[in-house]
Amino acid sequence: MDYFSSDFTLGILGGGQLGKMMLYETRKFDIHTKVMDASKDAPCKIGCDEFVIGDLLDFDAVYNFGKKVDVLTIEIENVNIVALEKLEDEGIKVYPPTAALRIIQNKAKQKLFYVDHNIPTAPFSRFAYASEIKESIEHGSLDFPFVWKIAQFGYDGQGVKIIRNMKDLQGLPPGECITEKLIPFKNELAVIVARNVKGEITTYPVVEMEFHPEANQVEYVICPARIEDKVANKAREIALEVSKQIKHVGLLAVEMFQTKENEILVNEVAPRPHNSGHYSIEASYTNQFEQHIRAILDLPLGNTNSKVAGIMVNLVGAEGHTGDVVYKNIEEIFKMDGVTPHIYGKRQTRPFRKMGHVTIVNEDINEARRIAQQVKETIKVISK
Amino acid sequence: MDYFSSDFTLGILGGGQLGKMMLYETRKFDIHTKVMDASKDAPCKIGCDEFVIGDLLDFDAVYNFGKKVDVLTIEIENVNIVALEKLEDEGIKVYPPTAALRIIQNKAKQKLFYVDHNIPTAPFSRFAYASEIKESIEHGSLDFPFVWKIAQFGYDGQGVKIIRNMKDLQGLPPGECITEKLIPFKNELAVIVARNVKGEITTYPVVEMEFHPEANQVEYVICPARIEDKVANKAREIALEVSKQIKHVGLLAVEMFQTKENEILVNEVAPRPHNSGHYSIEASYTNQFEQHIRAILDLPLGNTNSKVAGIMVNLVGAEGHTGDVVYKNIEEIFKMDGVTPHIYGKRQTRPFRKMGHVTIVNEDINEARRIAQQVKETIKVISK
Repeated sequence: MDYFSSDFTLGILGGGQLGKMMLYETRKFDIHTKVMDASKDAPCKIGCDEFVIGDLLDFDAVYNFGKKVDVLTIEIENVNIVALEKLEDEGIKVYPPTAALRIIQNKAKQKLFYVDHNIPTAPFSRFAYASEIKESIEHGSLDFPFVWKIAQFGYDGQGVKIIRNMKDLQGLPPGECITEKLIPFKNELAVIVARNVKGEITTYPVVEMEFHPEANQVEYVICPARIEDKVANKAREIALEVSKQIKHVGLLAVEMFQTKENEILVNEVAPRPHNSGHYSIEASYTNQFEQHIRAILDLPLGNTNSKVAGIMVNLVGAEGHTGDVVYKNIEEIFKMDGVTPHIYGKRQTRPFRKMGHVTIVNEDINEARRIAQQVKETIKVISK
Repeated sequence: MDYFSSDFTLGILGGGQLGKMMLYETRKFDIHTKVMDASKDAPCKIGCDEFVIGDLLDFDAVYNFGKKVDVLTIEIENVNIVALEKLEDEGIKVYPPTAALRIIQNKAKQKLFYVDHNIPTAPFSRFAYASEIKESIEHGSLDFPFVWKIAQFGYDGQGVKIIRNMKDLQGLPPGECITEKLIPFKNELAVIVARNVKGEITTYPVVEMEFHPEANQVEYVICPARIEDKVANKAREIALEVSKQIKHVGLLAVEMFQTKENEILVNEVAPRPHNSGHYSIEASYTNQFEQHIRAILDLPLGNTNSKVAGIMVNLVGAEGHTGDVVYKNIEEIFKMDGVTPHIYGKRQTRPFRKMGHVTIVNEDINEARRIAQQVKETIKVISK
């Protein structure tokens, strides 16, 4: 198939910031795209060839959209998988394949998959209803503290909570969930693996993440992770093992914990470009969005090495601000060396909403880290 | 003014490949854009917030378009300058300023400007009509060989011809033109200078250009130029002098000859992103398109250094091929290390038409040059 002709159409489910950054790459290669999102103001409304408004969880909307494209991909996991399975059966190329997506969409299934495939992960319990958690505690089969995670439809740190006492259980959504042993980790790491249709595989360097303690959102992503080589190699090997077992096509972002004993435990995975790979736009020979496009079009994969060290700072809505967004002091960060703001184009801010990110690149990772701190202290996402 | 709000609009005259690459940057910063081009199939029809069809040389079209934007820039020099002057008088921010654009639009005016400001350039003669060239030769005031250049509206190597004998004069367009002494140069070099509204200035490294001997189009752009530091410094100083005198806002691409005696002569300039700066997307800390946007919005200018060496190969239509385009062997070049194709999205190819470019980046410039040659020998722009 000639991807570089207007006879070919790539469909993307979801029109958010990940899709928006994917579209820079489809524009670069002049690949004809069609995007579906529920919001008429989605960041992807600009940059695609065709934009369709539709509910990603609606069978008919997803099926009808998918029938008109040659290759179908996602920028968000929460899509109607039954429609995708039907499309796949009818010969549409769906990447990630639905078999992989079905495992990933549900965190309980994901955890069982790790156990079944001898992939190290934190001990967990599965609950059909949140109310069952209390019973487990009372019966002595679950101890504080632990991490509660909703099985499906969590995003941006929503749907994850550290539970330290009975009071913390109040207000949890009632549905399917898991509880996980709280791991006293030394580092949170991530590795992005790319796999194309013919099965060629490549991994990005291990990155290190620092989370905001309250919002449970990534504050800094640092590439390369400042860890020992043998730990990095172990993380890469485990990520490759997950990739091999889950048989994704496109990217697989594997988030991991490095425990105090230097054990690596898989936390969770995402079968698409990921926040932990945004640094790659400025730092890598092939950025993650280009790599995802290469993989799903079965093109040869690109070089995943870095040209320079990269650090990413998420721009999230400041607490106490809801409404029309203003990027306070954005002009100040343009003065800093190697700093590139990415503004996603969401009109409304609210506390902890992901509104953009800033990449800091430098030959010296310590200098990059210093500038990243400055960026963090300078720019504020507030309302008018 | 808050550039990062939807109250602000940046207007771009011209919807070609340069505009298309500018739009990656306005999308990145979420800057609201409006583009005008004569063709409904212009590469910029995707990626801007609003697209308007209009003739860039028509006073009313340009004036009416410009009245609805806050800052107006160009991606091509051939626009109605009278309309721009009226817009400027009425308070629209036009960058490059019309005073600079008026000099640059006409190659005869450009050459006179260099002479008036003691900027080294090749000796030349100015002719109101091409027919006068023959008279000059007959009177002995002009000797073969020389370079003929049309004064206005040349592009992509059209409007430039080396004249070695009377026969070469046949078929030249009749209008205003210049003739220039044919310089037996050692290298063609270029320096891109960025200048923001408040007058801050920065220069990109000197690049070296190799031209296709027949088509008179750039074949390779190599950054950094493989020349002595003192020659590079001289080229940078001369480019800065042109910038200072011409008082542009935005980018100024200064093309120069390095003579066999290591003299630097200014060839011509362009007040916008330029083919000689395309390598910067992959190789530089701040690419030329982002830098142009920073400059015209009066933001601080970015770091112009390179992360790695960069080489650009133009993808031009192969001889003997006119019609619907095919990028033969494009999949092969995806296999090569550090190689990124950019496809402009023009549906029709013709001999020597600029259809895209390929960037090759590598820590080692000689390795990049070797791969660039391979790219050149592999991919072909042909018709179906």
